[in-house]
Amino acid sequence: MKATVKIPVAAYKASGFIKKYQNIVKDSVIPYQHSVLWDRAEGAEKSHVAANFINAARVLRGDNPGDGFYGMVFQDSDAYKWLEAAAYSLASQPDCVLEKEADELIELIASSQDGDGYINTAFTIKDRERRWTNLLEGHELYCSGHMIEAACAYFEATGKALLLEVAKKNADCIYRRFITEGNEGVPGHPEIELALMKLFRLTGDRRYLELSEHFINERGKRPDFWAREAEKRNWSVWGSNPWDNDYRQSARPVREQTEATGHAVRAVYLYTGMADLASEAEDEELLEACRRLWRNIVDRRMYITGGIGSTVNGEAFTVDYDLPPDTAYSETCAAIGLIFFGSSMLENEIKGEYGDIMELAFYNTVLAGMQLDGKRFFYVNPLEIDLGISGRASTHSHVLPSRPGWYACACCPPNVARMIGSIGSYAYGEKEDTVYCHLFAPGSVKFANGISLECVTDYPYDMNIKYAVKGSGIIAIRIPKWSRTYALRLNGEEADAAIKDGYAYIRVCGSAEIQLTLDGSPRFIRACSSVPRLTGMTALMRGPLVYCFEGADNGGIRDILLDKSAAPTVGDFSPELLGGTVTLTVKAYRISDINSLYSDEEERLAPCEATAVPYYTWGNRGENDMRVWMSYR
Amino acid sequence: MKATVKIPVAAYKASGFIKKYQNIVKDSVIPYQHSVLWDRAEGAEKSHVAANFINAARVLRGDNPGDGFYGMVFQDSDAYKWLEAAAYSLASQPDCVLEKEADELIELIASSQDGDGYINTAFTIKDRERRWTNLLEGHELYCSGHMIEAACAYFEATGKALLLEVAKKNADCIYRRFITEGNEGVPGHPEIELALMKLFRLTGDRRYLELSEHFINERGKRPDFWAREAEKRNWSVWGSNPWDNDYRQSARPVREQTEATGHAVRAVYLYTGMADLASEAEDEELLEACRRLWRNIVDRRMYITGGIGSTVNGEAFTVDYDLPPDTAYSETCAAIGLIFFGSSMLENEIKGEYGDIMELAFYNTVLAGMQLDGKRFFYVNPLEIDLGISGRASTHSHVLPSRPGWYACACCPPNVARMIGSIGSYAYGEKEDTVYCHLFAPGSVKFANGISLECVTDYPYDMNIKYAVKGSGIIAIRIPKWSRTYALRLNGEEADAAIKDGYAYIRVCGSAEIQLTLDGSPRFIRACSSVPRLTGMTALMRGPLVYCFEGADNGGIRDILLDKSAAPTVGDFSPELLGGTVTLTVKAYRISDINSLYSDEEERLAPCEATAVPYYTWGNRGENDMRVWMSYR
Repeated sequence: MKATVKIPVAAYKASGFIKKYQNIVKDSVIPYQHSVLWDRAEGAEKSHVAANFINAARVLRGDNPGDGFYGMVFQDSDAYKWLEAAAYSLASQPDCVLEKEADELIELIASSQDGDGYINTAFTIKDRERRWTNLLEGHELYCSGHMIEAACAYFEATGKALLLEVAKKNADCIYRRFITEGNEGVPGHPEIELALMKLFRLTGDRRYLELSEHFINERGKRPDFWAREAEKRNWSVWGSNPWDNDYRQSARPVREQTEATGHAVRAVYLYTGMADLASEAEDEELLEACRRLWRNIVDRRMYITGGIGSTVNGEAFTVDYDLPPDTAYSETCAAIGLIFFGSSMLENEIKGEYGDIMELAFYNTVLAGMQLDGKRFFYVNPLEIDLGISGRASTHSHVLPSRPGWYACACCPPNVARMIGSIGSYAYGEKEDTVYCHLFAPGSVKFANGISLECVTDYPYDMNIKYAVKGSGIIAIRIPKWSRTYALRLNGEEADAAIKDGYAYIRVCGSAEIQLTLDGSPRFIRACSSVPRLTGMTALMRGPLVYCFEGADNGGIRDILLDKSAAPTVGDFSPELLGGTVTLTVKAYRISDINSLYSDEEERLAPCEATAVPYYTWGNRGENDMRVWMSYR
Repeated sequence: MKATVKIPVAAYKASGFIKKYQNIVKDSVIPYQHSVLWDRAEGAEKSHVAANFINAARVLRGDNPGDGFYGMVFQDSDAYKWLEAAAYSLASQPDCVLEKEADELIELIASSQDGDGYINTAFTIKDRERRWTNLLEGHELYCSGHMIEAACAYFEATGKALLLEVAKKNADCIYRRFITEGNEGVPGHPEIELALMKLFRLTGDRRYLELSEHFINERGKRPDFWAREAEKRNWSVWGSNPWDNDYRQSARPVREQTEATGHAVRAVYLYTGMADLASEAEDEELLEACRRLWRNIVDRRMYITGGIGSTVNGEAFTVDYDLPPDTAYSETCAAIGLIFFGSSMLENEIKGEYGDIMELAFYNTVLAGMQLDGKRFFYVNPLEIDLGISGRASTHSHVLPSRPGWYACACCPPNVARMIGSIGSYAYGEKEDTVYCHLFAPGSVKFANGISLECVTDYPYDMNIKYAVKGSGIIAIRIPKWSRTYALRLNGEEADAAIKDGYAYIRVCGSAEIQLTLDGSPRFIRACSSVPRLTGMTALMRGPLVYCFEGADNGGIRDILLDKSAAPTVGDFSPELLGGTVTLTVKAYRISDINSLYSDEEERLAPCEATAVPYYTWGNRGENDMRVWMSYR
């Protein structure tokens, strides 16, 4: 029994903070990435994405392959992620120019599909005989997954079926290979599992669920598969170690896995597919595995920002409690995947924690991934920048103090775009006569059960959230665990709400106004003592926002000790500052410095104030030191 | 003008703490390594060191090469470092069995020398045509350097000249190649520079000084040398990047270098050779370069333990102030090289800082490198162990919580052995009628100027150092900068000592007793705020010893905050504990833990006591957490 179902992207029309971000995506990210796909973006590295599809179509027509294939083996996925983001944008706001661009790209994609449904420009252009011989590194199933996701999104947004037909034909091709013909293999990079669940949900065709289930159940059953596969071929993309099963979550069957391991994006994409399958197939054993993996992440392997994957080595999870602030990898895409996972868990069971973590990852790591103007992106989201060391020491070369331009491997920017564009379906869900407000996303929502609501709030800065509801049923609203107190009013009166597992359930009839007031007091946060280096340190949060201290506001920050004994002051909302924000001011001390590297000179503490800004806004004012965790007295 | 000259190793007979360590080296390290050289050590990896010499001699005789060459390209150096350590041991304490073993190995080495003086088993056995074609990686000059050092030490210890003759013939061979024939090239791994200076000092032959000077002056003049060299050959040892000039200190001429870069051992070996040359050649420009590099290390790139080279990536220096406690590399050999460098600087100018740093590196990192029983060794000397993370996370895989057995690359154990065995020559020096006490090394010393002294002390635990002096002249004693106060008495009266640059100069006539009393109060140390993560943290020292907190004494240590407001208590000397030590007890708090990874739950501090042990003793009681830097309140 599904606990709730996501609403379609088009059922939510954003306003406020979310609308601002959706506009940045529409006006900046999508057009810029479109020009990248077509190699028209000034100053960007050549992507060759559109050209690859053109050249694959030439090969299929029997022509020469033009200038051939160029890029990463998963280069096609850039087109698909762009299309998915474009679809979400079109779902919220029609735009005939964008739709024409999307249609043009879709025709190109369709023309690159082989007669049997296979589609992948790298293999079609370079060597069709190598198809399916390198699931370890080839990313064929990964690219298909993104294509399927884009196809579902585009069909839902526009009703146009061309890409969906391509997707179904491609899924059928994969079904034949792995189910009908019984060829061994699972994807090196999970993604198609969750995509097939989307295709199943859209089309109702159970073969897609069956194929997803197959990949999920086969994973890790034969850990030597990758090595046997590698032995059979004489080529490799990157020389990946086929025995590193932890890296690709295949050391044991997924139902037996207890720890989140390896490449963090692969992990949470896999877990999302597992949770989707668990809810559709009512597979309690699989759900229990998902719960274990969720707990392992949330209890032991997650940054306070909702970031996951603490090491650059393999962009991966490491071991419990290894969460270094300064060398964090915390990839933007992994935080997005954690939101997927949380959302899919909510479809299994309504628990406030899933939404708590989803908003933590969204308002902190996902938004930090994008420059405020939408023009540059962090892939890596450290919790500490030490100028002179970050980006310079060999152990910190991945930790950049400012967002770089578009990468050749452009995974994060379009992922941020599709996350922001589809946030409504993560924020709201429904089941029977109950509608669920998982995230506080301002705007209007129409539910299939007939209820509609208008959410008005300046969240995440204002802690008042008003819902103007039309229709009759139950409104279930997540009460974040971080809110020490809250007030719920129904039509101006204290609401008679049942509270269960972090949700307040309020029955409404006809029209109603619900007002939720959360606790906007700043909170000093500490980490459990198992996390090295954080004993005696504090971080600062308000609402869902993690704050950080930047040199731009404080001069030097390396000599600051916070004074936790006084409550921080909450500033007024400054529309001009960092795209509109609220600063926090904390009593603090500056510690007297010493003239040598080490000294027993007694310290003198000079009282001062320290100003914190939301973590998601960091690195927007030039390069400076930044810290989330601070020492205190 | 040399400021002072080291005393010969044999001029110092150790007692007390130093004697204890020399006995461990003699009774445990040297015999064990001897069995390793001959592949007779149970449980140790095959070294094949002696076999390589045997097989090289076979090749030279025109026989087949037996079972060939095995090991690292610098495998020969293990034999040389063992011989050097054996020589120092023999210099302090005759041992006919050891001397016979050494003689046997020396004959073997001599038999592996080619007719032209060339000696290196890797090249002689595998491919004599490849000689000198890979200075980047081949380690031929590095191995020659260690052979020359061993030869000088063995001649000084025993008067036996066979190895010295081999060394001179080899140095002559190198001289011909690089000076007479004018072939381009400098060693990829500096070492021969300082060795040639020893050979010059022993033999008086200026050609050896000239050859050392040549390598020093040529270094970095043509940074493309390595790439041109690599282009000329079709083989490589490790595929080293020939353009990574920082790694091997050759990005610019050494006289223009301002920062300690690259592989830390290479760096300090080079700087030692430079300082030796500067003092012998009265080369003020070179001395100034040494001073700059010393300052860069000591002011910005050195751990509080005297450890250097903060990253495992290339076992290297990184950038200023990048001194992470938990991922420290801080190789034992690099700390030894820092002592060499300091000692050679003292021969240029008498400044207390050199001795301060030498004793810091010796009593902390060098001694920590060896298990208390001399049977196991740390190559890596972290300042923090977090069980579950150290040695397990991919970023921490080099950080072992307990000393491993003998490595295939056995650089550190024999280096520790030769350092301990020759400590007297680093501790004492002389010039004209002045004798210098750089380190507080108990035992008797005979100086060439006729003065002799007996140093009696339980240093580093007792802060009273007595010198019974015979002879007339000036006794110059370093007053450590860490000692806030001190008292100097001459024959029971307050001494009338001139103080200059960290040394007290006391004139004595005939017999005299000098007593120095240093300040044994524990000291809370802090780091300058430019070092990330150490703001608000403290370390604990007493005398030259850095202390650390281990789980063995404290149960968990991750939840401890020190209370700096009270002075630590100095324990009595416990002969049974950790080979005989003094613990420090500090008032502290345990912070209440939380049930989740992060929480805003208020902390409760429960007063407690925390016990610290000297850093050099850590990891001798099984695996547990360890920390040098602690948070405090």
